[in-house]
Amino acid sequence: MSVTDLPRSRNGVNVEALFATLDAVRAQPEIARFQFRSSHRWITGTHNQGTIHGFYGAGQEHLHERVTQIDADHPAVLVGADNAPTPAELLLNALGACLMSGLANVAAARGIDLENVTATVEGDINLLGILGLDEDVRNGYEAIRVVFHVKGDAEAEKLAALVEQSRRRSAVFDVVTNGVPVTIDVASA
Amino acid sequence: MSVTDLPRSRNGVNVEALFATLDAVRAQPEIARFQFRSSHRWITGTHNQGTIHGFYGAGQEHLHERVTQIDADHPAVLVGADNAPTPAELLLNALGACLMSGLANVAAARGIDLENVTATVEGDINLLGILGLDEDVRNGYEAIRVVFHVKGDAEAEKLAALVEQSRRRSAVFDVVTNGVPVTIDVASA
Repeated sequence: MSVTDLPRSRNGVNVEALFATLDAVRAQPEIARFQFRSSHRWITGTHNQGTIHGFYGAGQEHLHERVTQIDADHPAVLVGADNAPTPAELLLNALGACLMSGLANVAAARGIDLENVTATVEGDINLLGILGLDEDVRNGYEAIRVVFHVKGDAEAEKLAALVEQSRRRSAVFDVVTNGVPVTIDVASA
Repeated sequence: MSVTDLPRSRNGVNVEALFATLDAVRAQPEIARFQFRSSHRWITGTHNQGTIHGFYGAGQEHLHERVTQIDADHPAVLVGADNAPTPAELLLNALGACLMSGLANVAAARGIDLENVTATVEGDINLLGILGLDEDVRNGYEAIRVVFHVKGDAEAEKLAALVEQSRRRSAVFDVVTNGVPVTIDVASA
């Protein structure tokens, strides 16, 4: 049975389970503590591979049903072999994905049927920063723009409000706009 | 011919081309302006797909050799169908990939041969934030930890310095630690 066949579902979201989960977390807030992970191995040059599989949450270890491997590389114009997208593009992808997943949950909770949702994410970056050629230029993006197209059974204002609520509750949007402390250690190999 | 067969290469990095690129950008800094992109489509529930292909840089439009599609979803414990990693994991992946790609370039530029490099990235997140159950809990990660294992033909201190220099010039590390302005618009569908 696919998730769209589940009772009390909308947009493929099991609304009953969603609200039951909220109730469970309200009753036992410590189950909301999660730890996500990725592991990485260098292949050659700027080409490397990340793997996502296990995570901790709701008081126990979990494994995703599938192991996901995502390669990264630099394109030829940046002296890479272009085996895969750049890490900077993977960051934009994470942002777009988070806003999209959130939107579907919000729409389901609000009783709005979605027909079609697409989004584009673009980021402007001046590579004088990462190339070490101008200390006044930051390494990362100067600005990121997201544009959503949402089609569903509600007026335009209500569809736009789905995007706004998704933004208000997006983990990746929060990190990308506000930053988070990152520690980096080097262990003996 | 694979990139590792190129003359003047180290760790699969074409050092000659790398330094030539730096010279070219010094002479014409406007070619350092890049724009990266990803596009997204909703599939069902929290399952959606991002696509990475075109980008702008060095004065012109480019296409990666391959179209990359990366799916995202929520796991069963978060009422998703677990078709793919969560967007929050994709963010960790982007960070690990960026530090890894940079490290290979830095090692090549410093004349250090790498043997084996791995890294793990983990992020702690309290879902009381994104679930809207505690306004004092942020939506995003509270902390992210990266651990590198670097094996190469240099003493431990110099290998650790590669990681540090990669961090200093990482686009994704900068965004994830310092944040960036993100605008979100909703266009008529």
